[in-house]
Amino acid sequence: MSDPLKVAIAGLGTVGAGTVQVLTNHADQIAARCGSQIIVTAVSARSRDKDRGFDVSPYAWFDDPVDMATEADADVIVELIGGSTGTALDLTKAAFSSGRHVVTANKALVAEAGTELAEAAEASSATLAYEAAVAGGIPIIKALREGLAGNQVIRVLGILNGTCNYILSTMESTGRDFDDVLKEAQDLGYAEADPSFDIDGVDAAHKLAILASLAFGTKVGFQDVHIEGIRGVAAIDFEYARDLGFRIKLLGLAGQTDQGISQRVYPCLIDEHGPLAIVDGSFNAVIAEGDFVGRSVYEGRGAGAGPTASAVVADIIDIAAGRLNYTFGVPAADLKELVSTPIENRVGAFYVRLKVVDQTGVFADIGSVFRDHSISMESILQRDHDSDGNVHVVIVTHDVKESALNAALTSLAAHEAMVEKPHVIRIEDVGGE
Amino acid sequence: MSDPLKVAIAGLGTVGAGTVQVLTNHADQIAARCGSQIIVTAVSARSRDKDRGFDVSPYAWFDDPVDMATEADADVIVELIGGSTGTALDLTKAAFSSGRHVVTANKALVAEAGTELAEAAEASSATLAYEAAVAGGIPIIKALREGLAGNQVIRVLGILNGTCNYILSTMESTGRDFDDVLKEAQDLGYAEADPSFDIDGVDAAHKLAILASLAFGTKVGFQDVHIEGIRGVAAIDFEYARDLGFRIKLLGLAGQTDQGISQRVYPCLIDEHGPLAIVDGSFNAVIAEGDFVGRSVYEGRGAGAGPTASAVVADIIDIAAGRLNYTFGVPAADLKELVSTPIENRVGAFYVRLKVVDQTGVFADIGSVFRDHSISMESILQRDHDSDGNVHVVIVTHDVKESALNAALTSLAAHEAMVEKPHVIRIEDVGGE
Repeated sequence: MSDPLKVAIAGLGTVGAGTVQVLTNHADQIAARCGSQIIVTAVSARSRDKDRGFDVSPYAWFDDPVDMATEADADVIVELIGGSTGTALDLTKAAFSSGRHVVTANKALVAEAGTELAEAAEASSATLAYEAAVAGGIPIIKALREGLAGNQVIRVLGILNGTCNYILSTMESTGRDFDDVLKEAQDLGYAEADPSFDIDGVDAAHKLAILASLAFGTKVGFQDVHIEGIRGVAAIDFEYARDLGFRIKLLGLAGQTDQGISQRVYPCLIDEHGPLAIVDGSFNAVIAEGDFVGRSVYEGRGAGAGPTASAVVADIIDIAAGRLNYTFGVPAADLKELVSTPIENRVGAFYVRLKVVDQTGVFADIGSVFRDHSISMESILQRDHDSDGNVHVVIVTHDVKESALNAALTSLAAHEAMVEKPHVIRIEDVGGE
Repeated sequence: MSDPLKVAIAGLGTVGAGTVQVLTNHADQIAARCGSQIIVTAVSARSRDKDRGFDVSPYAWFDDPVDMATEADADVIVELIGGSTGTALDLTKAAFSSGRHVVTANKALVAEAGTELAEAAEASSATLAYEAAVAGGIPIIKALREGLAGNQVIRVLGILNGTCNYILSTMESTGRDFDDVLKEAQDLGYAEADPSFDIDGVDAAHKLAILASLAFGTKVGFQDVHIEGIRGVAAIDFEYARDLGFRIKLLGLAGQTDQGISQRVYPCLIDEHGPLAIVDGSFNAVIAEGDFVGRSVYEGRGAGAGPTASAVVADIIDIAAGRLNYTFGVPAADLKELVSTPIENRVGAFYVRLKVVDQTGVFADIGSVFRDHSISMESILQRDHDSDGNVHVVIVTHDVKESALNAALTSLAAHEAMVEKPHVIRIEDVGGE
């Protein structure tokens, strides 16, 4: 056996405690797998005395995690503090500057400072490993960076936020409203007191930016992700979606086209028979399409102490076994500039829900507007009057450029019969029948 | 950049040609990913002159692939010949004896000689890499060996044979008989002229034995796999399965219990809402359940030149980048003896279809037999008379030990009203609602 690999952990919340638990419970198996023991030597957290279900006294204690990153007797620093700036960034840079590897679960850090950190890691022959940052229960970083390394990835997409997926799944199965389900999710601990990071799509966008960089060999471009959250999805949309053979999911989608890379997060309608349609609750799923491998699908828990700690430990084992890699699969100097394509260039189908006054000729007028903008309709539904005497009209378009649809919607919005702003959800073909 | 990694390829069928194509088309990207160029230096196949869509003249030609394994100017030998004995085995051993790594797509070889080859590889500090041997379009070897390395795997199971999955999917969607669909699959090239290796479950069993060894750290035990193929699944079973909320798939299932390791391949009924139910046609899928990660699901193409070549190249890239591993995740000397649990110990639910003469009291007699063997029934269906005036009775049991069910079926078979032997399909809970 080689010398033990020494690990210092910054942040002892549920994931930090879970990491200690995995390394302790499976110490023998892990040592066999990597040819050396992995031992925790130091820890840092806000309070030393908090009950975490294990005894911290065997480990050197640091009040300051940035100090720990350079002073601890450790080969690997595990960063579980969070945030893209401040302590997490400082300790990661400090660790690299003293030649130590960093394992992190911090998607914001990798998405917002990843390119810079990749350069810093390489300059010190250190590794930045972050399997836990995207869908802890799915080894998707490894799959993209190594398993599909022979492919040119054409697109990568998925359900990347468990909170949104839980809320949308629950709205669909119960027929309840967004606010009501969000409140319940908060009470159950599935959503934060300030839920905006999740439900406005920022968390999914962090993960998508990381996946896109790995897939396409580009600098991480979180700032270029087009982001829409799920606040606008109404209970009634699930009813219409079901009637039309769709489900509603928040997806992150990144693709490579002649015009550049698209990176988008928004709620969308997907075929009820496709591989993502059955992914419910707190599960995440990712689809990667490569030129040789074709479509590959990955599903697992997106968060939680166990899955995230499992990913952290997998990274530590790889380091112990000497299985290293470039941060984004190629040397930082080889990462291409990300040329982004704007959302207005998207060509795809749309679901459009209109609330109109029930008067003669409205239907014909709607049809004319779509025709005038060369938008062809695949189907159109009209439902019963609501209590105000208005009617819902739901249109599914064929593929059309987003800018053309926007122009049509602007015309429609000016129509006197329109009771409220048109409500639009994109339709994505992500496999299915 | 480091020195180029030199590769010699034995076997130039579609996968061999695909491997050359991936390495050629994506040479620059691959070089960036692994820090060195990967170049093909030598090839061997039956006929030098066959048109393969690329020119073999730049490569050293060997008539004998075993000679190539020791004499070629190569660091890695890619074995794409097939078979668990003979040339494939000889060249693999020869390659190790001269300190070369071996990348193979040969499931029979790894399943039947894996333990011995793991020892031979380690003795020469060489690597046996075989991502392409199990579900080429799914990086499942890497997921089990590295991605989930911090977990104790509880069970691993999946749809492991695309030919069977195509036949069962087609039988279900068309209502046609097995023989008819098999014939079509053969005409389309989805099934071999001699299809027994696929449809009798041997191919799936090879893959399952490999996954079980990786999951549980045991010596590969192909000879201990309980194998049943799909010849006995009738068109009528799909109708009843649908009525009961199930689909029918050939699964390989390996689990760890107090009594040892179970390794089984058989057709079974699975929940129509579960993650494997929508995996149709030539796709494969694997579920791995770990103690920390929970359930993770992987889906992709099981075979074909592109997906298999993608997996072969991923292994070559890992070797070029110095990311090596033990054959089954731990040193060969640490692999545990496989203690196998017999199929009679299985506890689970069953689907039982009986064809009986429509006479007074038969229903009561069937009920009595099940009651006398302490088997409780979850549901019972009776269908219209067939053209002979007989009736089908379909029973779904609650969980029961297989040996108890067998005893009940023996009693039933002796009943005078029984027109044919009871027809049994196991029901497996592999996730779902």
